[in-house]
Amino acid sequence: MVNRTVHIDQNQLAEMEQRYRAHLVNSLSGFKSANLIGTISESGQTNLAIVSSVFHLGADPALVGFISRPNSVARDTLSNIIATGSYTINQVNSDIWQQAHQTSARYEPQQCEFAEVGLTPEYYQEVQAPFVAQSRLKYGVKLESYQRIELNQTLLVIGSITDILLDDVALKNDGSIDIEQLNSVCVSGLDCYHRTERLGRLSYAKPGKPITLID
Amino acid sequence: MVNRTVHIDQNQLAEMEQRYRAHLVNSLSGFKSANLIGTISESGQTNLAIVSSVFHLGADPALVGFISRPNSVARDTLSNIIATGSYTINQVNSDIWQQAHQTSARYEPQQCEFAEVGLTPEYYQEVQAPFVAQSRLKYGVKLESYQRIELNQTLLVIGSITDILLDDVALKNDGSIDIEQLNSVCVSGLDCYHRTERLGRLSYAKPGKPITLID
Repeated sequence: MVNRTVHIDQNQLAEMEQRYRAHLVNSLSGFKSANLIGTISESGQTNLAIVSSVFHLGADPALVGFISRPNSVARDTLSNIIATGSYTINQVNSDIWQQAHQTSARYEPQQCEFAEVGLTPEYYQEVQAPFVAQSRLKYGVKLESYQRIELNQTLLVIGSITDILLDDVALKNDGSIDIEQLNSVCVSGLDCYHRTERLGRLSYAKPGKPITLID
Repeated sequence: MVNRTVHIDQNQLAEMEQRYRAHLVNSLSGFKSANLIGTISESGQTNLAIVSSVFHLGADPALVGFISRPNSVARDTLSNIIATGSYTINQVNSDIWQQAHQTSARYEPQQCEFAEVGLTPEYYQEVQAPFVAQSRLKYGVKLESYQRIELNQTLLVIGSITDILLDDVALKNDGSIDIEQLNSVCVSGLDCYHRTERLGRLSYAKPGKPITLID
């Protein structure tokens, strides 16, 4: 069977029904990370939100970014982060992916997503925001900056990584973490979750030198 | 066997050997997208670079972002984008993941990564930058803005999506794209590639209502 290539141009994109376009465009960037962001308000109300826009920003200093939409269900998350300067990022694994997805429901501010979906808040040392006990790779983050992206009024939120907590089985000799061994999942589009199967690690690429599989 | 939790604090992070820290911190955000960015210089020299930092920024207008490091091997990519305003983003699939990785070698500006790694440039209508023929989901992008992130001097590059080209088998009735069916891969850490296995699509979450698997 020969596949046919579909072409969708900018006019067709603009005229699409809103939900159809959201599904389509959310699929274009490829697989996305699945993380739960834990926060707490100044009055002690905890909040938990699944976010698929967390991305690596730099290793030295260790910085992580995510995109927050205006008026999204993560609005409590954002106001807690701005008020306290503290949040946690917790990788979603295949034991908790459905509970993680349920945090995207539009709960009232006084409802606690941890309790509503059945995940356990956990506190560690000086980190003010709650971690997710069921996550096997998580870290405390200190807010460093947030800036509006004028093109669509989303916010880019950047934090520095303070305290990393992870299952030791996944930490390798070279510092890499085998997140597949932790059953971390990824997301495509708006609502599709995937586990992974490793193809391999590849050697550092150099011109004129064939790459090789490592470990 | 009971797993032990490792705690790594900010001082330990700061004191790590540079490559060890790069492996570690690059693993924290979770799975990353794997994309090839195609560009062309004003004099007609094509360039191709693998990027794991492409992320969805918004559906209406359809915007996509990526992070460019200063002095990275993608410096030709960035200067071409700024000069022409045009680039393509091409999802990496399991047929071309090793060739895609090889584009990260530090080739000279006059070397063409397409030829060096054995991928085929392909042009479509008005889009100035080359696509990757072997990619099954790709789109032309028009540069909208770039801004420096002062915390670590990386650049956030944002573009609007113009022409989408994809295999019709993967386009579903609701607009979502089954990128797993296209054998798109994802990345963890600096150098590990993964194929995926679908856990399921989940219904739109609402408070007090159990989520269900869809399609």
